[in-house]
Amino acid sequence: MNELEVIRRISTLLPPAPPEVLVPLGDDCAVLEIGDRRWVAASDMLVSGHHFEDWATPEDVGYKAVAVNASDVAAMGGTPRFVLTSGGAPAPETALRCFAGVVEACERFGVYPLGGDTTRADVLTVDVAILGELATQPVLRSGASPGDSLAVTGELGASALGLLALERGMTGQERLISRCLRPEPRLEAGRAAARLGAGAMIDLSDGLASDVRHVCDGVGCIVDLDLLPIKDDTRELAESLGHDPEFLAATGGEDYELLICAPEPLLGTLANSVEVPLTLIGQITDSDVIFERGGESVDGLTGWNHFT
Amino acid sequence: MNELEVIRRISTLLPPAPPEVLVPLGDDCAVLEIGDRRWVAASDMLVSGHHFEDWATPEDVGYKAVAVNASDVAAMGGTPRFVLTSGGAPAPETALRCFAGVVEACERFGVYPLGGDTTRADVLTVDVAILGELATQPVLRSGASPGDSLAVTGELGASALGLLALERGMTGQERLISRCLRPEPRLEAGRAAARLGAGAMIDLSDGLASDVRHVCDGVGCIVDLDLLPIKDDTRELAESLGHDPEFLAATGGEDYELLICAPEPLLGTLANSVEVPLTLIGQITDSDVIFERGGESVDGLTGWNHFT
Repeated sequence: MNELEVIRRISTLLPPAPPEVLVPLGDDCAVLEIGDRRWVAASDMLVSGHHFEDWATPEDVGYKAVAVNASDVAAMGGTPRFVLTSGGAPAPETALRCFAGVVEACERFGVYPLGGDTTRADVLTVDVAILGELATQPVLRSGASPGDSLAVTGELGASALGLLALERGMTGQERLISRCLRPEPRLEAGRAAARLGAGAMIDLSDGLASDVRHVCDGVGCIVDLDLLPIKDDTRELAESLGHDPEFLAATGGEDYELLICAPEPLLGTLANSVEVPLTLIGQITDSDVIFERGGESVDGLTGWNHFT
Repeated sequence: MNELEVIRRISTLLPPAPPEVLVPLGDDCAVLEIGDRRWVAASDMLVSGHHFEDWATPEDVGYKAVAVNASDVAAMGGTPRFVLTSGGAPAPETALRCFAGVVEACERFGVYPLGGDTTRADVLTVDVAILGELATQPVLRSGASPGDSLAVTGELGASALGLLALERGMTGQERLISRCLRPEPRLEAGRAAARLGAGAMIDLSDGLASDVRHVCDGVGCIVDLDLLPIKDDTRELAESLGHDPEFLAATGGEDYELLICAPEPLLGTLANSVEVPLTLIGQITDSDVIFERGGESVDGLTGWNHFT
């Protein structure tokens, strides 16, 4: 059983949704309508020994917990507004340092910390629940249509290389390490994509190879690995460590970039209206998720499984 | 440093609150106003080895995580509406069982699960974030006035004895064990207290001896230990295990009863309007928190510290 199977089985247990619920669990966020305002809600938990090791400071962990939740809000086209944070730690000093990172990220992303819980745990564990606000219709994972183009914000693979640098205690790779420890949710691009009416959107947390399948429920896609946006430092470090840069960019995970499905003209307008670079990497098709390289199909690309 | 000191220090780091925030962190819940509706928000994390051991099933843990959050909502006078749940577990099967307990509690308390996260962790860890709705003004911890009476719902000490029974593998104590594993948030009493305009309210999670101090910021109280509502089975098991029943009832924690401060006539009206028994246990005074027994002051009573 993997995370998706857990979610599928929980979904069968749910009671009927109250009228406020526009979108239930299964997307990047659930969507609520309260009065005349629309809200999105999600949570993400980070656990020492699984999501990070001693190379991350408690402040980094708190910061990242907010950033990855803000990324889920970005993937719906929303603006993050409020968080609740529960932190478990071996010592109160560690919890406090983690919360300081939470507050730092909140200030960076314009989010207000409503409170939460702090308790003892053998290893640092932080869970952030986020409420974001929508000014438009939400962009769901399910709206991709054959003929749409696939675009990705920013760059891929940098976070995975930053992780390798951290694990090896390498110096001189501060940019890549920062991409791993302090990801940048693509809030402006997410809102612009929603405003323009993009068909489908998801944030890349588990890796493109895995996450692209969530926007291909009922449709397919062809992704050209040669088109993936990989920066020179990412490529150089990958090659020096004996990794294929494109494979790592497609499978490494934790990029927290947005994958956006929309007609190509809309993506062109989007690219002109946001600061972050947007790169076309493929097309939505009728069926099958296919990765290509030099015109040849590439098999066996998968992303992160939360339980292995 | 204890949990309160962590919260105090975090409070000094907070950015200015947005206009929706009526009550920031520091009470049982934060309070938000969205449109013309008021909401309360809180989160609580349960960690294996600290909040429970193998004597709790994953279903119990999931159920309890929702119940204790619903109790925070009850302590504001609200109705629990939505939860987000993040569960970390060594295996997906354990996470799924925990989520099944979450859903069971949601159905019991009329709450809808909006989603959350599931991930691998070395030990079962569950965090629930809750949104509740208010039909009245919230009842804060801070509104107690000298001359108010102190009342408590239900009974004290049963959960602490249930815990002792679980730790010793005792049989025949199912009622006490159920009070520990499946606490009953006092939602009806909380809402009635808010409707009647009670001065202050808190739910008893860390133990009366500790929690009563939160409603005595700037005032004091006298609590008569002889008045604490302790049921016969609680008293008998406490005595058979060599514990003083009143001391255990005042310090054991996890009762999830409501402590309500209000003029005595209001408490009389409240007692007549709710099903759960209400017991007068003391008075709010000008200063000093005092526990008495047989007219003599009792020193050294403290509740649960989350970091010891």
